[in-house]
Amino acid sequence: MKATIIGLGLIGGSIALDLKKAGLVTHVAGIDQNDAHTTEALKRGLVDEIVQPDAVKNADLIVLAIPVSALVKLLPGILDVVPGHTVVIDAGSTKSQICKAVANHPKRQQFVAAHPIAGTENSGPSAAFSGLFKNKTNIICERERSSPEALEVALKVFEALGMNTIFMDPEEHDRHVAYVSHLSHVSSFLLGQTVLDIERDEKNIFDLAGSGFASTVRLAKSSPDMWAPIFEQNAEYLSQALLEYIMHLQKFQYYLMKRDAKELHKIMSEANRIREILNGIELKQPKPSIVK
Amino acid sequence: MKATIIGLGLIGGSIALDLKKAGLVTHVAGIDQNDAHTTEALKRGLVDEIVQPDAVKNADLIVLAIPVSALVKLLPGILDVVPGHTVVIDAGSTKSQICKAVANHPKRQQFVAAHPIAGTENSGPSAAFSGLFKNKTNIICERERSSPEALEVALKVFEALGMNTIFMDPEEHDRHVAYVSHLSHVSSFLLGQTVLDIERDEKNIFDLAGSGFASTVRLAKSSPDMWAPIFEQNAEYLSQALLEYIMHLQKFQYYLMKRDAKELHKIMSEANRIREILNGIELKQPKPSIVK
Repeated sequence: MKATIIGLGLIGGSIALDLKKAGLVTHVAGIDQNDAHTTEALKRGLVDEIVQPDAVKNADLIVLAIPVSALVKLLPGILDVVPGHTVVIDAGSTKSQICKAVANHPKRQQFVAAHPIAGTENSGPSAAFSGLFKNKTNIICERERSSPEALEVALKVFEALGMNTIFMDPEEHDRHVAYVSHLSHVSSFLLGQTVLDIERDEKNIFDLAGSGFASTVRLAKSSPDMWAPIFEQNAEYLSQALLEYIMHLQKFQYYLMKRDAKELHKIMSEANRIREILNGIELKQPKPSIVK
Repeated sequence: MKATIIGLGLIGGSIALDLKKAGLVTHVAGIDQNDAHTTEALKRGLVDEIVQPDAVKNADLIVLAIPVSALVKLLPGILDVVPGHTVVIDAGSTKSQICKAVANHPKRQQFVAAHPIAGTENSGPSAAFSGLFKNKTNIICERERSSPEALEVALKVFEALGMNTIFMDPEEHDRHVAYVSHLSHVSSFLLGQTVLDIERDEKNIFDLAGSGFASTVRLAKSSPDMWAPIFEQNAEYLSQALLEYIMHLQKFQYYLMKRDAKELHKIMSEANRIREILNGIELKQPKPSIVK
């Protein structure tokens, strides 16, 4: 099977590496509009060759790992030109708008809408590595809209990456990731912003920052090119999650101003329940992600 | 030098281990009101023996590693009874109220107000380990109120822990840590709370959570017994930091509802500047604290 990866960043590059390693594909071609990325991807051996966009016609498998705004624009045109046996998979962090973009496309059944949930705060081909997806969760949406053949290929792809695939409705997907992924990113970006604002006046403030601070603002290093379109496409659900988060913060601030240590203690004790959930997440990680 | 550690949790236990290891003290006695903690501390060899509170009279060095609410209450009474050569050091995460509590104490010069900035989300003697403080920053407040002899002992203690000590005014300390430490904890506790709220209705939401989520909510595992008093004592500065954070979140939510991806991109690009600062913090860590 010959694969073409469109978008040679952290996600596309890591997928390319693992598909080759697992022996699922014999040849990986790469497409990226950024010349520095194509050069780097070749140099690091992520792909066998760089091809022009019209070469998608030669692929048995196409994986789209580009910002979700570009995905919505490019996906219908790609389906237009590919042969009848080609399977097209996306790796976007939103699913509703992408599914809508091809809902009435005559080749809809050749497309599998997926979200392999993995990543780091780093981006570009230099951030790609083998094993990024190992033991993580992949979500496939609208499985019934993909042909059994396309679905079979997609499941082999995610199995080769070492992922556990679950199935979900696109709206359900977008609502859930708003809470467990997108909100975390927003909280981190704006925590970073809040502290950077203060730092303008106070030069040595970061001497005081420790690993706790580093952990909470790590995601503020993430790529705005990738995240701005995700937030825009998931604006409704993310906005709802954000309003709930703000409400909790305001309630906390109210008890803080009342010096109500008992109520603050109660809120924190409830939040401590996250410990059990985090233990579950840590089990999914091949490498430790938590400072001990 | 004989030391007595009051509070045998993560901080007190780790200090005990490293003072012994560095050879700075010949004997470490421990005091803790929690019987399970004293048993565990002895079992793990954190201290040589457990003593009763009135044994503070026999110590050359006393380190207080207890919640800041207890610190404010106990510190004056401890200074009352210790001999003239004994040095008393605290490890509290707030400094203004602690300094005020002994401002007019006749033995004020035997006390050194310190904040060794280190920790993990875990607590209790089982969380203690040697090396916790290595290459981290320690802050001493009101250095001029401590005698040169007491200050010298304190500097030796923090040097034995491998820390870099800087000096600061208590108010300045409290304002800075509100931003770079306390706010991170609040954001994490309430992010945990927000997601737990949703999870009540949606059972499988955490299948979708990855290392990014784990990183931002890690601090929500922290001890409410320790943090509620810190937040209460630092309510003014923390409240200010929290209001600024909420303001940034609300501004983001406004652009989100306008689907203004350009403005969202701009905010995130500014927050990306945190990358340089995080690189600096990572250099301070003996072990990697960031998922790659």
